[in-house]
Amino acid sequence: MTTWLDDVRWNADGLVAAIAQDAATQRVLTLAWMNREALVQTDATREAHYWSRSRGRLWRKGESSGHVQRVREIRLDCDGDAIVLQVEQAGGIACHTGRERCFYRLLDDGAWVETDPVLKNPREIYKDG
Amino acid sequence: MTTWLDDVRWNADGLVAAIAQDAATQRVLTLAWMNREALVQTDATREAHYWSRSRGRLWRKGESSGHVQRVREIRLDCDGDAIVLQVEQAGGIACHTGRERCFYRLLDDGAWVETDPVLKNPREIYKDG
Repeated sequence: MTTWLDDVRWNADGLVAAIAQDAATQRVLTLAWMNREALVQTDATREAHYWSRSRGRLWRKGESSGHVQRVREIRLDCDGDAIVLQVEQAGGIACHTGRERCFYRLLDDGAWVETDPVLKNPREIYKDG
Repeated sequence: MTTWLDDVRWNADGLVAAIAQDAATQRVLTLAWMNREALVQTDATREAHYWSRSRGRLWRKGESSGHVQRVREIRLDCDGDAIVLQVEQAGGIACHTGRERCFYRLLDDGAWVETDPVLKNPREIYKDG
């Protein structure tokens, strides 16, 4: 009945890595983790759901920030242990630091250099959260 | 001396997830894992090196297939546990199945559908390997 879920090679913690890529800019925004329920919810609602390892619970991306990820496409890799989502990123901000993407640090001559601006103060993003 | 390596949040197995994205097409090609040495080698040689979890050894991408990944950019995410590489993919084939990318399966109405063609027979790719 749910054979597509069985094609995913869940790790020992029951999780699979999920990359979110901006459908418009093609930038890689986030890498997060999904359990079975998160993937089912992502497919059913077409909004990205993840398993928060730090909070130990299902997490609808944007539930407190409003920065939801509308899902256009869900892809699985050859060995079934990674997913790529094509998403429309609400607010143009995917990172909890208020930046477009989490990958805002570039390795430059032996140092990580911040290349991306903070678009919104996190205190403003999470004031109701 | 190697503080940039200490900014990476290595997991319990000493690994960090590494996404490779094609610098030309912006497609996400692969998700693999790096240990400390793999990241050092990737930076030093500007060719992607990973830790092969199945083989339990350092692995220079393309060492047997010739499908090396020339690295243009190395980025780290906000919490330090994921990397994105911008790469030039030799041969235009990143996947061991002979496809451009590993993410060739699309979720479509409850089934994973293969959307990408095999560009080269894996037997031809690995005949010397």
